[in-house]
Amino acid sequence: MPQTQIIGIVGGVGPHAGLDLGRKVLEQTRATVDQEHLNMVLLSWPRCVPDRTAFLLGQSNDDPVPGMVCCVQALESVGATVAGIACNTAHAPRLFSRLIATLRSSGSGIVVINMIQEVARFIQCHFPDVRRVGVLATDGTVTTNTYGEVFSREDLTSVYPDVQVQRELVHGAIYDRTYGIKAVSSPVSERARAAVLAAATHLLNDKGAEALVLGCTELPLAVSERFLHGRPVVDAGMVLARALVASVEPERLKPFDMGA
Amino acid sequence: MPQTQIIGIVGGVGPHAGLDLGRKVLEQTRATVDQEHLNMVLLSWPRCVPDRTAFLLGQSNDDPVPGMVCCVQALESVGATVAGIACNTAHAPRLFSRLIATLRSSGSGIVVINMIQEVARFIQCHFPDVRRVGVLATDGTVTTNTYGEVFSREDLTSVYPDVQVQRELVHGAIYDRTYGIKAVSSPVSERARAAVLAAATHLLNDKGAEALVLGCTELPLAVSERFLHGRPVVDAGMVLARALVASVEPERLKPFDMGA
Repeated sequence: MPQTQIIGIVGGVGPHAGLDLGRKVLEQTRATVDQEHLNMVLLSWPRCVPDRTAFLLGQSNDDPVPGMVCCVQALESVGATVAGIACNTAHAPRLFSRLIATLRSSGSGIVVINMIQEVARFIQCHFPDVRRVGVLATDGTVTTNTYGEVFSREDLTSVYPDVQVQRELVHGAIYDRTYGIKAVSSPVSERARAAVLAAATHLLNDKGAEALVLGCTELPLAVSERFLHGRPVVDAGMVLARALVASVEPERLKPFDMGA
Repeated sequence: MPQTQIIGIVGGVGPHAGLDLGRKVLEQTRATVDQEHLNMVLLSWPRCVPDRTAFLLGQSNDDPVPGMVCCVQALESVGATVAGIACNTAHAPRLFSRLIATLRSSGSGIVVINMIQEVARFIQCHFPDVRRVGVLATDGTVTTNTYGEVFSREDLTSVYPDVQVQRELVHGAIYDRTYGIKAVSSPVSERARAAVLAAATHLLNDKGAEALVLGCTELPLAVSERFLHGRPVVDAGMVLARALVASVEPERLKPFDMGA
């Protein structure tokens, strides 16, 4: 067993997003040789974790929480002391709070970082003038107001797309079986990227958002810009990766590069 | 615990290469929704596995085998039934055969796929006219003739770069702390890519190679071409990913796309 702490990642939700979070952990770490990188374990068990959005919207009775609990316990069994879940929708209170409660009642001691909470702190720290934050996310994350609940406690306001934009552009870009990011991601289809950019413009120009959160771990696969229309675009997965690095070896965390 | 079989990946050797192998497993799998992807666990424990090349060349006494054994056992402990190691140099007989022997004597039942053996079979299957295969790899893989030993049993001849080309272009492109792929990989530096391409041209034009193997898992991060000078370029990591998919659910393996 390794002597150093181990970062755990619940991947598979979706599979590409899990690997992407792992890559971001490497990117946010100061290292010039292999052995300077942090120890990490990634579980990608998509078959154990039913779709979060379908469950939250009542379209399915398959509860994703037991599978996520199983993943976190497996991470802990190989030595992980802190974990991140590479899925925003899994942070909906109805899922995340049950996950934490189940882990605690099972005697688990692993720290599961709340990605949404970290995004709120990140915006306050790096973009302190921002109040209205546009959220690009799945229907599950939007409908459950996952960002809004956390943001309101931090003096931030979450701004969502109009219903039609949400359904047709954002949700389609993520889930459509012919062009959506979950189906086509290496590379992402032009149609999916165009849909996400159109929804972003809608939030910034029509809804008064002062910053954007890419609040679904699939979205940064389509949009890598750090700014759109001069407003910051915050990748929730990058924020989670930084929190994971900081939690085990803060001295290895790279300074945040604001870009431009 | 998942009901389906789990693919294990020994990553961290290097860290980017491990994630890259995970990505290739996804790319080689037929799936349009998350839950159709295979269950996978990736251990990236770079701090537990000292540099393979330095050990093989006698520059270091830090044996990488115990750390690799520990990784494979941890993969097995969370349910993996088959594993791949995302490092060609780890397949040098002095390392790989000791790894397998140690696992067997410990009672482990996991199948560790031999990437080099799979590459030989892949070339015979898809490029049956090829006999002379140029190998781009670390000094450790080249000096120990890891490809040559396996290839000679399969009626293939391995062709290596001249010593100066190997040292200055190939090894530098992988290991240099300022421009090498292990230090700078998102994106890879232009200097590293140019060095790999120059070494590839040397193997094809000066040494009579009829195909090339990217025999270090870092190299495909620099060179994504499927053909160079009209000759096939085989990414050993892609071959390993296909073997992993085929070993757990052959019906989910995508047909090999020859490209052009």
